[in-house]
Amino acid sequence: MAATVAVENLNPKVLKCEYAVRGEIVIHAQHLQQQLQTQPGSLPFDEILYCNIGNPQSLGQQPVTFFREVLALCDHPCLLEKEETKSLFSADAISRAKQILSTIPGRATGAYSHSQGIKGLRDAIAAGIASRDGFPANADDIFVTDGASPGVHMMMQLLIRNEKDGILCPIPQYPLYSASIALHGGTLVPYYLDEKTGWGLEISDLKKQLEDARSKGIDVRALVVINPGNPTGQVLAEDNQCDIVRFCKNEGLILLADEVYQENIYVDDKKFNSFKKIARSVGYGEDDLPLVSFQSVSKGYYGECGKRGGYMEITGFSAPVREQIYKIASVNLCSNITGQILASLVMNPPKVGDESYAAYKAEKDGILQSLARRAKALEDAFNNLEGISCNKAEGAMYLFPQIHLPKKAIEAAKAANKAPDAFYALRLLESTGIVVVPGSGFGQVPGTWHIRCTILPQEDKIPAVITRFKAFHEAFMAEYRD
Amino acid sequence: MAATVAVENLNPKVLKCEYAVRGEIVIHAQHLQQQLQTQPGSLPFDEILYCNIGNPQSLGQQPVTFFREVLALCDHPCLLEKEETKSLFSADAISRAKQILSTIPGRATGAYSHSQGIKGLRDAIAAGIASRDGFPANADDIFVTDGASPGVHMMMQLLIRNEKDGILCPIPQYPLYSASIALHGGTLVPYYLDEKTGWGLEISDLKKQLEDARSKGIDVRALVVINPGNPTGQVLAEDNQCDIVRFCKNEGLILLADEVYQENIYVDDKKFNSFKKIARSVGYGEDDLPLVSFQSVSKGYYGECGKRGGYMEITGFSAPVREQIYKIASVNLCSNITGQILASLVMNPPKVGDESYAAYKAEKDGILQSLARRAKALEDAFNNLEGISCNKAEGAMYLFPQIHLPKKAIEAAKAANKAPDAFYALRLLESTGIVVVPGSGFGQVPGTWHIRCTILPQEDKIPAVITRFKAFHEAFMAEYRD
Repeated sequence: MAATVAVENLNPKVLKCEYAVRGEIVIHAQHLQQQLQTQPGSLPFDEILYCNIGNPQSLGQQPVTFFREVLALCDHPCLLEKEETKSLFSADAISRAKQILSTIPGRATGAYSHSQGIKGLRDAIAAGIASRDGFPANADDIFVTDGASPGVHMMMQLLIRNEKDGILCPIPQYPLYSASIALHGGTLVPYYLDEKTGWGLEISDLKKQLEDARSKGIDVRALVVINPGNPTGQVLAEDNQCDIVRFCKNEGLILLADEVYQENIYVDDKKFNSFKKIARSVGYGEDDLPLVSFQSVSKGYYGECGKRGGYMEITGFSAPVREQIYKIASVNLCSNITGQILASLVMNPPKVGDESYAAYKAEKDGILQSLARRAKALEDAFNNLEGISCNKAEGAMYLFPQIHLPKKAIEAAKAANKAPDAFYALRLLESTGIVVVPGSGFGQVPGTWHIRCTILPQEDKIPAVITRFKAFHEAFMAEYRD
Repeated sequence: MAATVAVENLNPKVLKCEYAVRGEIVIHAQHLQQQLQTQPGSLPFDEILYCNIGNPQSLGQQPVTFFREVLALCDHPCLLEKEETKSLFSADAISRAKQILSTIPGRATGAYSHSQGIKGLRDAIAAGIASRDGFPANADDIFVTDGASPGVHMMMQLLIRNEKDGILCPIPQYPLYSASIALHGGTLVPYYLDEKTGWGLEISDLKKQLEDARSKGIDVRALVVINPGNPTGQVLAEDNQCDIVRFCKNEGLILLADEVYQENIYVDDKKFNSFKKIARSVGYGEDDLPLVSFQSVSKGYYGECGKRGGYMEITGFSAPVREQIYKIASVNLCSNITGQILASLVMNPPKVGDESYAAYKAEKDGILQSLARRAKALEDAFNNLEGISCNKAEGAMYLFPQIHLPKKAIEAAKAANKAPDAFYALRLLESTGIVVVPGSGFGQVPGTWHIRCTILPQEDKIPAVITRFKAFHEAFMAEYRD
């Protein structure tokens, strides 16, 4: 009799799925970390530096005080009745917590909410979107989610019927998309971002890839755009975005807009424009374009990854389709209330005149300005190394330098049965404790090799990161230079 | 050209999925609630009473103070440095929060954790399981999840390859199982619980259904057992559980044990035994039986539905299969940290000698004793009504009375294009504001009709619930009596 449960009899879609951000190299890093604990001094470094994932607080970023004050008060509302609370919490955190609790039926932060999220919090999120975009937003269009990932899964589950359904995704892409498409049994239709033009998105390439897929019988359902880009860090120009929404309308594609890095922009000549704002600006209404915008509390200056909050704003879908989305959401009952509250806070932070505003603004600016400096320092460092070229991180939390690996390194990788960039990343880890993700986990033009490195180590550590990286890279090149 | 996105071109598995607990009747109730707000006095009742879902805090149950103190302190750790905190929080909540923070790398409650959950919290959960069962438990076997539902989905996603893969589920069942099986494209293989013997689980019926499914070419992968039962409220006897684990071993089935009501037992002659304890008691080790136990912070005396915490304990799976489970978990990064902390707290609550113990014990006992009284009062009330018979709620949070509907009512339902129990539940809602779920949402022996009603209205409301229900039922029977 076959084993009850074995890899051979698991869902092949699960087997096919890959997720490099927490893949082999990260698992190896966790083992090395354990080794450092049990046998200090046994490795050529004394800490693991996780630059593999956009997880700011794991590297020392502090949470925004106002947000945490409100969460603590909502978690333990009895505090609001105590006199001592006034000396421990800011006045506007207290009033915000009261206001939030007043919108929750029975003030019950321990109850399942409406499957789309608490209505009062969705109202705050919609107001924040409207204020950001200058176009109205509707609480009924908001589905609050445990971070952006469950929203992406929900849309893939809704749209993908079988392997003939395709989703256009950028290459390089954040592997949540390839993983989710694999898990739901669809086909990833790649379009390439152009590294030479700072990871530009060319409509002509989109068109070509779409037609190519269609000629193979693929029913292309949707276009994923990640803006600001992950892993590539580019911020799309407004006219490029206008072309993208026109392309989607003309081709009958749903636009899935990953906008989780909307607050992470580090250059003065670029700004974030939501695709909904762009669509409305070019005159498209609800009926012209089905559009989903994903947002998360994990990114931005807030970086609250562990709270698992986020939302998707769904416009341009018919009522019967929305009912199906609601049904999927309802099977999971609701997203966590702490994350829901936090999603409402990041879309409606303290305003000028609020007691917390000055402190909040200082924390926010401090984090964003520091991220900009770190991005620039790492970019410059990469560009100063032999055989590495690195585009500017205009936004998001990553650099995606190209490593021009010598032939000998590629052969050594082949001999070790590794992709060349994975070989490089593994050697980097073992020499320095720095964890990055090989470009092959995101996709890249065949024959090119990259790594994704976050800009998240705390600023005082950046010089040491650069020194360690430089020493490793120079030794690596010395070993393998053609 | 076909519409870009329309019900006709959605994933048929999504269309097939049903989830009655938040289905048509609940949506209708939400509309009536809005009507009560905008037009008070326009309906024959002045509030909607949601007895459709196990959501205690939505009906006024208060959270356990100790748990919320710890959550608030972990959400805003700065509090731990302030003198005033000592007068606002119990000493053991402060020390517990410090201990929890010390196990989180960088004390970062805002960081993604290990995809299985924070190791220190899994240690606490494993210790709680070991202390409950008297058999060892291992933190590496714990996957902390956003409530039990994502764990169930993960296992279905792992096991179901296509419609020839079957999962044995009780009928009646909690519709998460039917929904998840439908979403993943498998086949639900039903086995019937015997209403006459208090919703007994007969191995002979299990065997019959298994053989019947196999004769149709279904590869039956797993057996779902819900204990204590949902919607049926029975608590399995120990010898019955021993027979179930032997059956699974002999038949090569994975045992999926829904044990989320493990703290909800209301009769003196029954106690909760985890299936892992039973398996180890009959001498089965890791290699004998693949077993998954699901637990949630949403149920028990804690009832923290909105926090979305829980775990699954996975034993008896090979390392390569566990790697696949880890991979799926990692695509979603991690469950929310607040829920993770709470899952560790419910498995490791205050102990005798802790400052909070007396208050904690009083809150816990108060809730559980009140639930037992409410269960009994509602059970008696149902059994006193014409044409209703109701088994004892030995555990969980529900009664599942059978309504012997008159022929005329069944014909009226048919004329209204409703299932007879849905017709009854809709009439109940429209007359009284009481929301229950029709038995057809859970499955029932064909030709029998039930409703699921929670025992969760606060105790002071129970007499009014009974009065309203009785008046409705008598009028309904007067209208339709044969």
